[in-house]
Amino acid sequence: MAGRGFMQWAANCRTVRLDVGLATSEIIVLGQTLCTDLSSITPEGTVTFHTVVGHEGDITVSAKNESPEGMGSNGGVTKMVAYISVATPSSKIDDKEVNFLFVDKSGDTIGVATLRMTAFYVSLDVDCDRDGVVEKNNPNKASWKWGPDGHGAILLVNNDCDDYLLEMDPEHKNSKIDGPFDLEDMSRMSVRVRGPDTLPEDCKLRMWVRPDDKERLGIFNLSDIQKLRASGVVLDELGNRHIIGPKAGHLAQISYDLMMAGGTGEGETLFAVEGLKYPDRDFNGTLRIHLSLLKNAAVPVFEDTVMFRLAPWIMTPNTLEPVEAFTCQMKKKENIDFVNDFTKVVEAAGIKLNIVLPYENRGDRWMQDEIELGYSELPGKKPMPVVLDSPRDRGLQKFPKGKLLGPDFGYVTRYDQNEYVNSLDSFGNLEVSPPVKVDGRTYPMGRILLGSAFPTTKYGRRMMRVVRDFLYAQQVQPPVELFSDWLAVGHIDEFMSFVPAAGGKGFRLLLASPAACYNLLRKLKDQGHGDVLCFEGRTRHGESAEKSISDLLDDADLKAESMQCQNDIDWNRDVMKRELGLDEGDIIDLPQLFQLEEGSGAGAYFPDMVNMIVLGKHLGIPKPFGPMIDGECAIETNVRSLLEPLGLTCNFVNDWDSYHLLMGEVHCGSNTRRKPFDFKWWNMSF
Amino acid sequence: MAGRGFMQWAANCRTVRLDVGLATSEIIVLGQTLCTDLSSITPEGTVTFHTVVGHEGDITVSAKNESPEGMGSNGGVTKMVAYISVATPSSKIDDKEVNFLFVDKSGDTIGVATLRMTAFYVSLDVDCDRDGVVEKNNPNKASWKWGPDGHGAILLVNNDCDDYLLEMDPEHKNSKIDGPFDLEDMSRMSVRVRGPDTLPEDCKLRMWVRPDDKERLGIFNLSDIQKLRASGVVLDELGNRHIIGPKAGHLAQISYDLMMAGGTGEGETLFAVEGLKYPDRDFNGTLRIHLSLLKNAAVPVFEDTVMFRLAPWIMTPNTLEPVEAFTCQMKKKENIDFVNDFTKVVEAAGIKLNIVLPYENRGDRWMQDEIELGYSELPGKKPMPVVLDSPRDRGLQKFPKGKLLGPDFGYVTRYDQNEYVNSLDSFGNLEVSPPVKVDGRTYPMGRILLGSAFPTTKYGRRMMRVVRDFLYAQQVQPPVELFSDWLAVGHIDEFMSFVPAAGGKGFRLLLASPAACYNLLRKLKDQGHGDVLCFEGRTRHGESAEKSISDLLDDADLKAESMQCQNDIDWNRDVMKRELGLDEGDIIDLPQLFQLEEGSGAGAYFPDMVNMIVLGKHLGIPKPFGPMIDGECAIETNVRSLLEPLGLTCNFVNDWDSYHLLMGEVHCGSNTRRKPFDFKWWNMSF
Repeated sequence: MAGRGFMQWAANCRTVRLDVGLATSEIIVLGQTLCTDLSSITPEGTVTFHTVVGHEGDITVSAKNESPEGMGSNGGVTKMVAYISVATPSSKIDDKEVNFLFVDKSGDTIGVATLRMTAFYVSLDVDCDRDGVVEKNNPNKASWKWGPDGHGAILLVNNDCDDYLLEMDPEHKNSKIDGPFDLEDMSRMSVRVRGPDTLPEDCKLRMWVRPDDKERLGIFNLSDIQKLRASGVVLDELGNRHIIGPKAGHLAQISYDLMMAGGTGEGETLFAVEGLKYPDRDFNGTLRIHLSLLKNAAVPVFEDTVMFRLAPWIMTPNTLEPVEAFTCQMKKKENIDFVNDFTKVVEAAGIKLNIVLPYENRGDRWMQDEIELGYSELPGKKPMPVVLDSPRDRGLQKFPKGKLLGPDFGYVTRYDQNEYVNSLDSFGNLEVSPPVKVDGRTYPMGRILLGSAFPTTKYGRRMMRVVRDFLYAQQVQPPVELFSDWLAVGHIDEFMSFVPAAGGKGFRLLLASPAACYNLLRKLKDQGHGDVLCFEGRTRHGESAEKSISDLLDDADLKAESMQCQNDIDWNRDVMKRELGLDEGDIIDLPQLFQLEEGSGAGAYFPDMVNMIVLGKHLGIPKPFGPMIDGECAIETNVRSLLEPLGLTCNFVNDWDSYHLLMGEVHCGSNTRRKPFDFKWWNMSF
Repeated sequence: MAGRGFMQWAANCRTVRLDVGLATSEIIVLGQTLCTDLSSITPEGTVTFHTVVGHEGDITVSAKNESPEGMGSNGGVTKMVAYISVATPSSKIDDKEVNFLFVDKSGDTIGVATLRMTAFYVSLDVDCDRDGVVEKNNPNKASWKWGPDGHGAILLVNNDCDDYLLEMDPEHKNSKIDGPFDLEDMSRMSVRVRGPDTLPEDCKLRMWVRPDDKERLGIFNLSDIQKLRASGVVLDELGNRHIIGPKAGHLAQISYDLMMAGGTGEGETLFAVEGLKYPDRDFNGTLRIHLSLLKNAAVPVFEDTVMFRLAPWIMTPNTLEPVEAFTCQMKKKENIDFVNDFTKVVEAAGIKLNIVLPYENRGDRWMQDEIELGYSELPGKKPMPVVLDSPRDRGLQKFPKGKLLGPDFGYVTRYDQNEYVNSLDSFGNLEVSPPVKVDGRTYPMGRILLGSAFPTTKYGRRMMRVVRDFLYAQQVQPPVELFSDWLAVGHIDEFMSFVPAAGGKGFRLLLASPAACYNLLRKLKDQGHGDVLCFEGRTRHGESAEKSISDLLDDADLKAESMQCQNDIDWNRDVMKRELGLDEGDIIDLPQLFQLEEGSGAGAYFPDMVNMIVLGKHLGIPKPFGPMIDGECAIETNVRSLLEPLGLTCNFVNDWDSYHLLMGEVHCGSNTRRKPFDFKWWNMSF
C-alpha cells in the first residue's frame, strides 16, 4: 500500500495571514514560499498597493490576481495573492521585513500590513549516493531507487553483538552504542541548520517517525553524546540511548525535539541510525525519518524527509567460494569415520573446519537443518555474516546464538508459537540457486528454493509461514516453492543440489534419478555383472543390506516406489526448468533409488549422492557402496564420469551407519559459510 | 509481495519417462509439450532411432541433442531429448501413440519404447474483456490490467441481502444462492473440457484456491444445481452451497474435484463466483482460481489459472447528483423547525427525503456520522449502493443494517475491538473530493479526505486503523489525511465542503474563515453598523447570545482563539492545494468564528456555514443569525454574493437550538445518497 496520503505534512507553499496596522512574525525556511491573500484585508477605498521590502535582492515578492481557471476576472471571485520567498538565512529573529502599503485614489497610504520573517536553512541529510558521505540536501533523499542508476540510503539490521558484556539477545537488543564497532554498523544522518542561534519562542524542531516504524530502527544523537563526553560526563543510561526507537523498559520513542546549535548560528547535529528489523510480511523494508519545524508547538510549517531501506538478508549458493565448514562430532566418537572423511574434503578445499562437540550439539547431528548462513551488506563496508536460525530447535538450538552470534556476526530467527514445527521447517529444505536469467529477467543473486506440500493438497506440510514470509520479503532472491512433501523427511536437499561447473551457465543442477539408476544397473547386467553384490558388507536394521544387481532390478516394489519418486522429482525438474530458465543440458541425473518409509513418505534406498557438500571444486559425496566392478564401485565410476569433466573432484564420504540409516547424509550433517556475492544487492533491477 | 514463486505449479513442458520394451500411458493437454530423455534409455548397441507416429499430422515429435550452453558436443553430457505435442483431443483413452524404435548398426530394431497419450482440451474461463460473455481461453485471463486498454475479470462483494428469509448479516453471509437476484451479483466462470468421456483412472480435475483466499470468495457449481433441479431434486443444504469458500458450520473449502461431463465427450461446466471481502490491508484485491489436472491423485500435470479483482467501495463527492436525503426526527418534535427547513431544501432539489423516526434513531440525530453511502460496480450491471457503517455506534447503530441493507443495497463495516472508538471515527470526518488532477496525475473519482491528529503529536485522535486501512486499500480514491484533531468534535466537515460550480474546475472548495469573518465585520463597522446586534434573539446555555458587531470585534480572546483556528485551517488549505492541485481561485472563504471549548478543542462560535448539505445546486446552509442590515442578514448577504454567481441557491436552515448548540450543524444532521460516477473504476490508470 504505497503512497499513503500525507507523506509530507507541511506544504512548500504556506498560507500566512496579515492584517492592516499590524506586524506579523513568521518563520520561513529557505526554499519555501509564503502566500497571503491581500484582497481579504484591503481597507475600504484602496485603489492600489505598493510593496516595500527590507532587504532588496534577498526577499522576493510577487503578486497576482487569482480566479478560477478559465473564468477571467468577470466571473467568480478574484483574489490578489502575494508570494514571498527569501534567499539567505536570518542573522537574528525577525530581521527580514516586507510592508504592503494600501493607497487610495488620492495617493494617500490608508493602511500598512507588515510581514516580519525569520529565515532558516534546515535540512535533514543522509548518504543517498552511498559513497560514505552524508550529502547536503540531496534532491533524492526522500526516495529510493533500485538498480545501477539507483539511489537511496541504506540501513543494516544491527543484529550482531558488539557488547563486551555479552548481552546476547539481538531480538531484545540493548538501545545503546556498544563501542566503536557497534557504531560501524550504523548509518549516519545529519540535521543542518543555518539562521539565528535559537528558534522563535513558539517554534520547535522535531524529528519523528511513524508509530509503525518505532521498533524497526534506533537513532542516536552522536553530537549530544560527544558533547556530554567532552564535558566529562560519564555516559550512563541517560546519555547513550535511542532518542527514537525502542528503549528498554520504556515505550518506544517516536519523536525527539532538537536543541538548536547555539553560538555560531550555523550548526550540524550528527546522528547514527541502526536498523532493527528485516523487511517482512508487513514491512516493505523502507523507513522514513521526518524533521518538522513546528509553530505553536504543534503545527508543522516545514518538513523534510529522508528514506532508508533495510539491507536484506541474502543466501549464498553452492557456486560461491566456501569460507568455513561446520559438522558435529557425536558422543563416544560414534561418527568418527564420517568426521575423518569429511575433514579430508574440507582440508582439500583449504578452508577452516569447525567441529561442534557433543556438549554443544546435544546429540543433534543435523547441522544443515538448524541454521542457514547468509549475510547482509552496507555500501562501502565489509558484508556482515548473519545466521538465520530455524524454528526447528532440536539439540543444536543454542548453537547459533551461543556460538555464531558475536562481533560482526549477526543473528535472526522467525518463529510462531501458534504453529506446529514440522520437518519441512529444517533448512535442509532451504537452498538458493546460482544466478540465473529467466525469459529476460535476471536474478543476479539467484532464487531461493524451498520445499512445500502442493497447494492442491488439503493436508500437507509446509515451512512455517513466518519463515516463508521473511524469505519472500527480502525481495532480492525471489523464492520458488518446490514439492518436497512426498519425502518422509521432506527436504529439497534429498533430491537436488547445485555444483559449480566449467562451461554452460557456470553451474549444473544435479537431480537424484531412479531412471538413471535403473539404466545404469541394467547396462551393468547386460555387461554380465548381474550377480555382483551391491552394498557389500553393509547392514540395515541389523540385517545384511547386500543385494545383487539382478535382484535389485527384479525388485518390482522397489522399482514401483522409485519410479513414483521419479515422477515427483520430474515435477520439480519441470518447475526448476521454467523458474530458473534451465535446459536439459544444465541438468545432470545422478543414479539413486528411493523406497517408501512405512506410512510417512519416501527415503533414499542407498546413500543419497545429491545430498553432498560442495566446497568449490571439492565435493563430499555420500559413498554409495555400489557393485565393485574391476576394483571400482560402478556407481562412483558413473558419478565421476558425469562430474569430473566439469572440473570437479569427487570425494566419497562414508556416512552409511552414522547418517544414511538415520535418513540423512553428508549435506544434512554439515553446513558451509560462503563468501558474499561480488554483486551488490542494491544494484538489482526490478 | 507480488509474484510469489509458484503461481503456476505445473509446467507447460512436462518431463515423462519411457522404457524400452514398455508402453507408457500419459495424459496430455492441448498446448502442452511432453519431454523425454531418450539417451537415458538407449539400449547398448544403438546407432540411430526412428519415430513411428500413430496419427500423422496430429502428433508432432521433434528430437534434439542438448548440452550445456556453449559447450557443443565435446564437453559435458549430451542428451537426446524428444518433444511431443498433439493438436486434437482424444476420442478415447490412449488413442494417440508414438513409438521410438532403436536401431543397431546392422539396421535391426533392438528395442522399442512406446508412448500412449490421452489428449484433452481443458480451459478455465472468465469474462476477461468485461463484455458479459465468458470468453474461450482468453490469453489475458490469468492477469489483470488497469486502465482504458486494460483487461481482467471482476467480482462484486456480494454484500447486499437478497434472501427473502431476511438472514440479514452479510458479514456471516449464508453460502447459498438467494434466488435470481443474488445470482445477478455474481460473475460467471466456466470449465471447458474436450476429450474422452472420463479421465484416465488415476487422474482428477481439481479446482482450488490458496488458503489465504478461502474467506474472500464463494463459488457455486451452476451446472450441478441446474442438473439437480432438472432431475426433480429439491435443493437443500447439500445441493446449493459454496463448493469453494465459506460454508456455514464447516471449515471453508479450498478445493473441489470436478466430475467430467459424460456422454458427448465435450462439456462446459458453469460456475457462479461471488466476492466476500473488499480489498484491505492484507489483501490487494486480486484473487486467483486454479484448475489442475492431477495424476496419481495428487501431482499436477496441467494447470490453468484465472484472476479476478474485487470491485472497490467507492465514495461519492458533493458534485455528483443527489438521489435521496436522510435526516432524523427527534422525540417530541424537538427539531421540527429544522426538519421543516430541511424538507424545503430537499423538495427544491426534487429528491426523496427519508426521515428517520425516533424509534429508529434512538435519540441520535447525527445522521452524517453513523454511515457513509457509497457504491460498488460490476461491468455491464447497475452499480450497487453500499453503506459503510462507522464503528461509532451510537443511537443510529442499527439503522444501516436494519434499514438500508436489503436487495441491491450492500453493507460493510470495519471495527476493531482492541481499539477505543473516538469522535474522529464518525463519518462527518470522512469526505471525498471531486475529480482532480495533480501534477499530471488524474484522480477521476477524486481523493478521500479524512481528519487525523498530526503524526508529530504523541497523543491525539485518529480514525480507527482498520477503517483507514480499508479506505486506503480501495485504491481508486487515494486518501489524503487532514488535520482535524484541533477541533473539539474533530470532523473535517466542520471547516470544509465542496460545491459544484460553474467554471473553473467545476467545483469550489469552501473553507470556514475567521479572517474573512473579521474582514466582513470590520467593513460593516467602518460602514457605521458597529452597534447592530448579531445573533438577535438567540440564546446559548440559557443566556442571551446577542452581541454587537463592535463587541465581537473587540473580544480579544475570541479573536485570538479564532485566528489560532485560522492557522489550523490554513494548514489544511495548504495540504489540499498541494494534494488536490488547487489554486487560491478554487477556494472560497466563508466567514466563520471559532472558540475554544473548555479543555477539548475548538468549536464554531455561530452556526458553521461550511457544514452544509449540497444537493445539486441547492445548498442547505446553517443559518448564521448575523447582523440585520437593510432588512437582510449581512452574513447571509455575503455568503450569497460568494456562492450565487456560481449558479448555486442558498437556503438557510435554522439549526441553532437543535444542532448548533449541540456542536453540530446541517451536514452533521443529514446524509445523502448520490448517483455513481459515469467513470468506470476499472478504467483508472495508475
